[in-house]
Amino acid sequence: MRLPKPIQTLIDQFERLPGIGPKSAQRLAFYLLHVPETEIKKFADALMEMKTKTKLCLKCHNVCLEEICEVCSDLSRTTSTICVVEQPLDALAIERSGKFEGLYHVLHGSISPLNNIGPEQLYLNDIVKRLDGVEEIILATNPTMEGEATAMYVQRLLEEHGFTGEISRIGHGLPIGADIEYADGVTLSRALEGRRKM
Amino acid sequence: MRLPKPIQTLIDQFERLPGIGPKSAQRLAFYLLHVPETEIKKFADALMEMKTKTKLCLKCHNVCLEEICEVCSDLSRTTSTICVVEQPLDALAIERSGKFEGLYHVLHGSISPLNNIGPEQLYLNDIVKRLDGVEEIILATNPTMEGEATAMYVQRLLEEHGFTGEISRIGHGLPIGADIEYADGVTLSRALEGRRKM
Repeated sequence: MRLPKPIQTLIDQFERLPGIGPKSAQRLAFYLLHVPETEIKKFADALMEMKTKTKLCLKCHNVCLEEICEVCSDLSRTTSTICVVEQPLDALAIERSGKFEGLYHVLHGSISPLNNIGPEQLYLNDIVKRLDGVEEIILATNPTMEGEATAMYVQRLLEEHGFTGEISRIGHGLPIGADIEYADGVTLSRALEGRRKM
Repeated sequence: MRLPKPIQTLIDQFERLPGIGPKSAQRLAFYLLHVPETEIKKFADALMEMKTKTKLCLKCHNVCLEEICEVCSDLSRTTSTICVVEQPLDALAIERSGKFEGLYHVLHGSISPLNNIGPEQLYLNDIVKRLDGVEEIILATNPTMEGEATAMYVQRLLEEHGFTGEISRIGHGLPIGADIEYADGVTLSRALEGRRKM
């Protein structure tokens, strides 16, 4: 006895997703076996529509429904500041803070030689076409090895293209609500470096 | 800025799956954003085909491609023994052991009052229509509260219907390769109860 092929195929599809192992994939497929067909149809449609109905903004490469995203087409935003982020969700998180009025540039990843991701695999090099009238570029890639490498690459790229505005890195330190006692050494040393006059 | 609706819809769909929280759902949706459309199509098709191309065997309720499953239509199997399991994967696991020659009866769950699952929600009551010529029914539901309750329910049901054959419960005890030192008390007490002459 083997699993019927349509079920095995679905298990294989789930297994390709990040963070889903063989056991979870089986569990998900058998869970869906008991879900009504109308609901399964909604799931399948959602998958296709996510792909067919969304675009990447021609300017900042954030996901959106039109050629140009909400932020880039919003005339009230400050066009002299661009915040470079790795993923659309990062831009969303910064928007939620309500503290940023400028534009974004979404790279869709970070430089990661181990995963064969170089600058060419990212929406990175065309940032130099957006420098007209820009006074500051904030590098808000993640505080990881890959994020730091990406930030350094973008910095060099901008300098090579003669960008004369300010290039800044998003501040690192203790997250609000954290306990110094439990903070790791790297975070603490960054927090000390980034200390400000009161 | 909010997430484009097609992406939010997909995130919502992922969130409904068991064991997938809001963060994993976001991660999965954004992972799929970078997967080519042909691959997404395969995933969507796999979802629909799992639902449209599989059936439950009219006899044992295991998943299969025809009206009657491979096992039930295999004339070489012993028809005098039926093994009652909770899920198709349980039947598959028992098949893999190669030690069972009889037929199955797949309940598709276990009695669980906390989750509003009673005997009517399971493929349970029609087991009494399969008792002709059956000499032994092995209850191989899981060794959990729900599985034990289900086994007891099936036992009572069979007795009420005047089943005179043997009703047995799959053996419990130490799994092969386990260490007595680390075994829990319930398993050990079951292992002692189930001791056999050498």
